[in-house]
Amino acid sequence: MTANILDGHVHAQILIDSIETELDRLSHVPGLAVVLVGDDPASHVYVQSKVRMAGRLGLRGEVELLPHDASEAELLAVIATLNARDDVDGILVQLPLPAHIDALRVMAAVDPSKDVDGLHALNAGRLFHGDDALVPCTPLGCLRLIKSIRPDLTGCHAVVIGSSNIVGKPMAALLLKEQATVTQTHIHTSGIADICRQADILVSAVGKAGLVRGDWIKPQAIVIDVGTTRVKTADGRTTLRGDVLFDEAVQVAGAITPVPRGVGPMTIACLMENTVKAAKARRARLH
Amino acid sequence: MTANILDGHVHAQILIDSIETELDRLSHVPGLAVVLVGDDPASHVYVQSKVRMAGRLGLRGEVELLPHDASEAELLAVIATLNARDDVDGILVQLPLPAHIDALRVMAAVDPSKDVDGLHALNAGRLFHGDDALVPCTPLGCLRLIKSIRPDLTGCHAVVIGSSNIVGKPMAALLLKEQATVTQTHIHTSGIADICRQADILVSAVGKAGLVRGDWIKPQAIVIDVGTTRVKTADGRTTLRGDVLFDEAVQVAGAITPVPRGVGPMTIACLMENTVKAAKARRARLH
Repeated sequence: MTANILDGHVHAQILIDSIETELDRLSHVPGLAVVLVGDDPASHVYVQSKVRMAGRLGLRGEVELLPHDASEAELLAVIATLNARDDVDGILVQLPLPAHIDALRVMAAVDPSKDVDGLHALNAGRLFHGDDALVPCTPLGCLRLIKSIRPDLTGCHAVVIGSSNIVGKPMAALLLKEQATVTQTHIHTSGIADICRQADILVSAVGKAGLVRGDWIKPQAIVIDVGTTRVKTADGRTTLRGDVLFDEAVQVAGAITPVPRGVGPMTIACLMENTVKAAKARRARLH
Repeated sequence: MTANILDGHVHAQILIDSIETELDRLSHVPGLAVVLVGDDPASHVYVQSKVRMAGRLGLRGEVELLPHDASEAELLAVIATLNARDDVDGILVQLPLPAHIDALRVMAAVDPSKDVDGLHALNAGRLFHGDDALVPCTPLGCLRLIKSIRPDLTGCHAVVIGSSNIVGKPMAALLLKEQATVTQTHIHTSGIADICRQADILVSAVGKAGLVRGDWIKPQAIVIDVGTTRVKTADGRTTLRGDVLFDEAVQVAGAITPVPRGVGPMTIACLMENTVKAAKARRARLH
């Protein structure tokens, strides 16, 4: 028996449909501003796909482009303008930022009520405390996929590989909030295979192609693969590989996300969800 | 062979000595304000011991007493005054608050730079992100005890029993920041004994006397007992019991805290440390 394949496009579409219903009820059009510094080709692709999705949904999407040598002060000035604009409900600063800019200071400058990437310390703290918050989009999307299979996570054991601020840690916090027992692992973890074998839910977010073997997986576990590593195939093309050795894992897991077409589409859909959530909350407070 | 007993008074005194040296270098006297609502006898004892320790160290300590029927607005007004006062470096609102007061709103009202209890979402988020923050005193004290035995926690497996915002979660975040692999457990965890048996470091913070048996403990583990439950002894006296069955655990662990005289004294010493830290940071910014 092979695992249930969690098709990210299908689940993203379900979420997008519900966002559209929600938008029909709003009296204003939420606005999303994406700030992009420099000309990293991958970042441009990501930003375009975000703005395109916003447009498809009928949100107002805009991109603020800054040259790669823009100063931190210039970037902070752009953010201050977006913070002040009433027609901007969500602000996302595309990462990574150039090395001469202090990302921590930039994240702290975004109005927490418009922080649709959930990276402001105030939102992180609210999530950590189990309170309502704007939460990073990728772990939000992963949680949705997990709950599509298992709506009640109370008491199951979740293992998260990776402890970044944008995926691993908020993923663990979300799973804990769902009353799962949560183990957070990372590059320094010893005996990781044995730890993973205890996981009813296994989320890997490290970007190391093929790290997770089939024999790391507990039979019938839900496996979520956030990793995307660009690798060259034998015929010279470039392809995306996940952290999980899919062909092995699919024989053991109960459900698994593919790479691509797994977590990726969910991330963008959750960004739209966060933008609408931010718009509703801010306007409810203001008006 | 029995475990090393981690005497909280001894370790607290080491910390207090280093704070005194630090205070000698400061040009001003840091001030700590403790806000107490109502007349819970235990809370009064805790507050007195905090203010007494502040006085012993030469800090300026003060208590703001409010009646048990004080309104939330009155409490928020007291906090606003303390936020504004330049001679107050640390503000601690003694918990629990009466049921008619929204503790979340109260915590959010304390100036994050004076939040020596580390309960403001901004400080929680900074801790969660691995950045510099004011961190709750009890887990800070636990970490000090752990590191007195094992200064480098990289790659060891830590298990935290309990996931409260004031102990369990910040304890896990601190251990993760030290590059330990961290499992967070709680009331819904199944198979907790097996999970605990993997722990090189075991911290219990649930307040359930005798929960952790000797056979839950990995040989030579460091065991930190935060629980304090008041129980009646056979002769009618009242005594404090920890979460860990000490007599069993001491035969297996490498190091263990007793209850009392374990974590308790460290908590108060760490509150003094946080007050001095807050004073230095705020004044460095202001002057």
